[in-house]
Amino acid sequence: MVLARGQFASTALLGTGTIPEFMMKFCPSCGQPVELRVPAGDNLPRAVCSACATIHYENPRVIVGCVPEWQGRILLCRRAIEPRLGYWTTPAGFLEIGESLQCAAARESSEEALANVSIGSLLTVTNVLHAAQVHVMFRARLLDGQFGLGAESLEVGLYEEAEIPWDRIAFPSIDFALRCYLEDRRAGVEALHFHDIDRRLESP
Amino acid sequence: MVLARGQFASTALLGTGTIPEFMMKFCPSCGQPVELRVPAGDNLPRAVCSACATIHYENPRVIVGCVPEWQGRILLCRRAIEPRLGYWTTPAGFLEIGESLQCAAARESSEEALANVSIGSLLTVTNVLHAAQVHVMFRARLLDGQFGLGAESLEVGLYEEAEIPWDRIAFPSIDFALRCYLEDRRAGVEALHFHDIDRRLESP
Repeated sequence: MVLARGQFASTALLGTGTIPEFMMKFCPSCGQPVELRVPAGDNLPRAVCSACATIHYENPRVIVGCVPEWQGRILLCRRAIEPRLGYWTTPAGFLEIGESLQCAAARESSEEALANVSIGSLLTVTNVLHAAQVHVMFRARLLDGQFGLGAESLEVGLYEEAEIPWDRIAFPSIDFALRCYLEDRRAGVEALHFHDIDRRLESP
Repeated sequence: MVLARGQFASTALLGTGTIPEFMMKFCPSCGQPVELRVPAGDNLPRAVCSACATIHYENPRVIVGCVPEWQGRILLCRRAIEPRLGYWTTPAGFLEIGESLQCAAARESSEEALANVSIGSLLTVTNVLHAAQVHVMFRARLLDGQFGLGAESLEVGLYEEAEIPWDRIAFPSIDFALRCYLEDRRAGVEALHFHDIDRRLESP
């Protein structure tokens, strides 16, 4: 799908009538089929229950993580799970109900790398438009230099900048966060960087 | 519900067995009942379909908005819709699938105040834990000083700092954003401010 830049993207992602593959087909409240239509007073198609009339809103999800550093080296994990099994990432995952962004970033470091981190400043925010996700990455410090192999990791280690496997980074938003982190560290600043990724804009 | 501070909040928000009021009861993929249980390899209870076994993840939603300024005055809207009908806010609303945070902030200004804005730096991020929301607010400028009455607004206007109706602001995250905006403006800086709101921690 090709979008004009500047166009409000959400209206172009959904059409009325047919229900896209990623959207719900049955009402989570009563179990009857939903239809895709624009409710009164709204301007976007929503999943509306054909029986109980409940309107179900589907919204982007937040992925949150951090770039943990210890004595100049960066904590990286090689993924033991899909997607991108075998590729490298910093700790990151879905924000869960009931936790703050910072809490989630620390939890992911604990789960994926058995590492206790102190969360610092906000590093990057990447709008991943084709995936309906926002990827939020913080700077972080290992508290004690300790780490280990979490259940979702094949390898975990601390790496010098020159050792980072740039051709095997799992996700573009992680690549972006690592490059921003290192560039800012060289410059002695802690800036916030925004980035949009939209595969809908790519040629087929 | 009372949580110990520092505890990973998500595990405390949900129990297994019974399905909280805000969670789905039927499978959006096939329409059969879901049950709340911890899937293999996970550590949080999820809605799992009793028939097709699909695991449905529910995650926090993002509210995004901005504080638009024109010649020193702030654009405020009085809400024509619930919740908080009749109270004042800056333009803000749910991030929709397929749009960036910045695009959503501009769209909300267009919808609620018929205003064209240029989105600036990130102002505040508020983790609203009891509501499973993240509220993201940007600085903004009106492009031409023009505005009008959007369908969701009873009144729209540009207000001097001394005219802001502090006792009738619709949401704590908007109050927080306005106060940060004005304080930073006085100091001549554009900082990023974080804030957690958690009514689960309040005494009943």
